[in-house]
Amino acid sequence: METRIYFEVELPPANEALLIAELEALEVVLSVTEVQSLQKIYGKRIIIMGGGAQVGQVALGAISEADRHNIRGEHISVDTIPLVGEQALAAAVRACNRLARVRALVLAGSLMGGDIEAAVKEVRAAGLLVISLNMAGSVPDASDLVVTDPVQAGVMAVMAVADTAKFTIDRLHRRVF
Amino acid sequence: METRIYFEVELPPANEALLIAELEALEVVLSVTEVQSLQKIYGKRIIIMGGGAQVGQVALGAISEADRHNIRGEHISVDTIPLVGEQALAAAVRACNRLARVRALVLAGSLMGGDIEAAVKEVRAAGLLVISLNMAGSVPDASDLVVTDPVQAGVMAVMAVADTAKFTIDRLHRRVF
Repeated sequence: METRIYFEVELPPANEALLIAELEALEVVLSVTEVQSLQKIYGKRIIIMGGGAQVGQVALGAISEADRHNIRGEHISVDTIPLVGEQALAAAVRACNRLARVRALVLAGSLMGGDIEAAVKEVRAAGLLVISLNMAGSVPDASDLVVTDPVQAGVMAVMAVADTAKFTIDRLHRRVF
Repeated sequence: METRIYFEVELPPANEALLIAELEALEVVLSVTEVQSLQKIYGKRIIIMGGGAQVGQVALGAISEADRHNIRGEHISVDTIPLVGEQALAAAVRACNRLARVRALVLAGSLMGGDIEAAVKEVRAAGLLVISLNMAGSVPDASDLVVTDPVQAGVMAVMAVADTAKFTIDRLHRRVF
């Protein structure tokens, strides 16, 4: 059985050819291909999850705003999953920590609390930016930023992670919009 | 320096505890945690790329449709990147082969050809379903399916990969809508 392994690793430039030659020399290796990193092609990721109607509106805002930054050389992807249910959403929030290149999470729904709130606190403690729509339940209070308009929530998520934008959540005087 | 490695592997059920015990016994391993697979949490992925205005509309359709299937137990994510330029888009199309869990690609723009067409043929040959908006350039002719309305393109992409849907592209009598 043949298996393909994809990995990204940072090396001093002169060592690339050496690593490839040594990998090719291994008996278990059939071939080695050097490719552009996914970080370079797809870049930073915004994850949007929750109810379909609202996830769609947040995505519209985020994609429009990402377009404006990507045209200027940024690389921002907008990834979404419409999901229902406390356990499914809590698991998806927690799994953000295992996804590569994730920079911000937007929770888009009308009611979220319980274990989702606990999951939000965990991923925030691990360094993830969490934006919540203004909704029922305890998730808004557990988030970095609360935004009422879903399109604006998407735009703000992209502004917060874009190097091409001047927007720093730490410098905001209020956290509810 | 500590490094975290995440991997997904299929094993006969009885062997899980044994693998974890053997990994924990390794001197280089500090800790081992068993988690739900990303396949189980985020499931199949639809990738949408191209111009922001159109990517947003395709995403709206795909997210609404994925919501309907995920409520019935499917797990479908809708991932997007607004991108401009032949080389950037061709690289992003080719990199779909290196992304995990991707089942369909939607190209959403007004003009795509050249190396993007070559990239579409490569990923189709590797088994990926490619849907193109009806647009200028050679990409529509190189795709599995051409759809004029962006919302419908998103809906059809999700229908094509959902086990909860009855929609088989191979059985369509026409490929342009």
